[in-house]
Amino acid sequence: MTKPILWISPGACSLAPHILIREAEIDFETVVINAKAGFPQEYRHMNPKARVPIFQLGDETITEVPAIMTAISQMSPNKHLLGKTNLEIVRTYEWCNWLSGTVHAQAFGGVRRSHRFSDDPQTYNAIKAKGRKTIEESLEFIEEKLKGSHAVGDTFTAVDAFLLVIYRWGNDTGIDMKGKYPKYANLVVEGLKRDSVKAAIEVEGIKFEV
Amino acid sequence: MTKPILWISPGACSLAPHILIREAEIDFETVVINAKAGFPQEYRHMNPKARVPIFQLGDETITEVPAIMTAISQMSPNKHLLGKTNLEIVRTYEWCNWLSGTVHAQAFGGVRRSHRFSDDPQTYNAIKAKGRKTIEESLEFIEEKLKGSHAVGDTFTAVDAFLLVIYRWGNDTGIDMKGKYPKYANLVVEGLKRDSVKAAIEVEGIKFEV
Ligand SMILES: N[C@@H](CCC(=O)N[C@@H](CS)C(=O)NCC(=O)O)C(=O)O
Ligand SMILES: N[C@@H](CCC(=O)N[C@@H](CS)C(=O)NCC(=O)O)C(=O)O
Repeated sequence: MTKPILWISPGACSLAPHILIREAEIDFETVVINAKAGFPQEYRHMNPKARVPIFQLGDETITEVPAIMTAISQMSPNKHLLGKTNLEIVRTYEWCNWLSGTVHAQAFGGVRRSHRFSDDPQTYNAIKAKGRKTIEESLEFIEEKLKGSHAVGDTFTAVDAFLLVIYRWGNDTGIDMKGKYPKYANLVVEGLKRDSVKAAIEVEGIKFEV
Repeated sequence: MTKPILWISPGACSLAPHILIREAEIDFETVVINAKAGFPQEYRHMNPKARVPIFQLGDETITEVPAIMTAISQMSPNKHLLGKTNLEIVRTYEWCNWLSGTVHAQAFGGVRRSHRFSDDPQTYNAIKAKGRKTIEESLEFIEEKLKGSHAVGDTFTAVDAFLLVIYRWGNDTGIDMKGKYPKYANLVVEGLKRDSVKAAIEVEGIKFEV
């Protein structure tokens, strides 16, 4: 069988499945594109929704972070990357849906991709301000929820990978992540010790400071 | 064990897990609240994110539609409510994440809950207009993707339940759903024949026209 291919953009949300696939120790290839200024027109046929990550598994093309992380976990079932028990798996999807739909799309999307919410540039300042507020509320919510160095259960899961990406975006947004969210910072410190995380950061050529 | 309790608001996205739990033939109770004008302050302790659905499973309180549907499916594994194969399960999460984050939160959220995206009422018309555009793009995308009377595989899954809710919201928004999206309308016609769907609609006291 051909190797699975993960389409990523450095530092984008694709970093989460990128970390996870290394955690799963699956042999894979990457296609690196730059989606910062918008998903390149020439790759629209790969994903009409015009987003990374994209995961090619044989003839199947899979999109959406939680779905790709599900596929990765299925390929390495013994690693329990979505959690060990039924309840842990439920908690993983609860985190992922909120991180994807509320924290990523609504909060960070408002700040970085205001044009998704309005065609009138005169509204962008208000949308960015509200996005920023929702980011801060979400980070407080994360800080309150965290109990240890893993979000779900006592091992590394898809949620930890996703939380690493969001933390880095928080830093990028100029928020004092370490000062304001010590439990979250601790999860990230532990995460950054993992080979999977180190390798993904290196391959993407990005900086990651706690 | 005490019966699980599903918190719903008539016609809200909670209709999707409400249909699914009836499909699963699980004995359950409902708490019906009215979230139309905003999630009631007095129930915030149940879900600090202030949203329905909420699913109480013994001492555990679960939020987020895809997570609740995962929990429901786990309770009736023989029904394969997330799909029969690994790939079908991946497709179910792919659909659900997009329906939840893009179609529900971004598109319909823009139209109905503009205040989530900006604190300035002067921007709401622009946000509503863009939401409306994203709804129509999303409905076209759904119409293109559908192949038969089920979204994933050849049996009823969580995705069909979610699609029923979105279709009804499309009607509410004044879109000619049946005329513009005949494949989608066919999936809904088939869905409305199911006992689970009929019962959920009746209990919620809502109208559902194709
Ligand atoms: N719901 C999607 C969101 C993906 C997404 O928003 N990706 C961003 C990068 S973080 C992107 O490709 N943006 C390009 C653009 O908006 O043009 C998922 O879970 O995969
Ligand atoms: N991401 C959440 C979204 C839930 C949601 O937006 N629920 C709406 C009803 S469709 C709600 O409770 N809205 C009340 C409010 O916005 O105040 C999920 O998947 O459960």
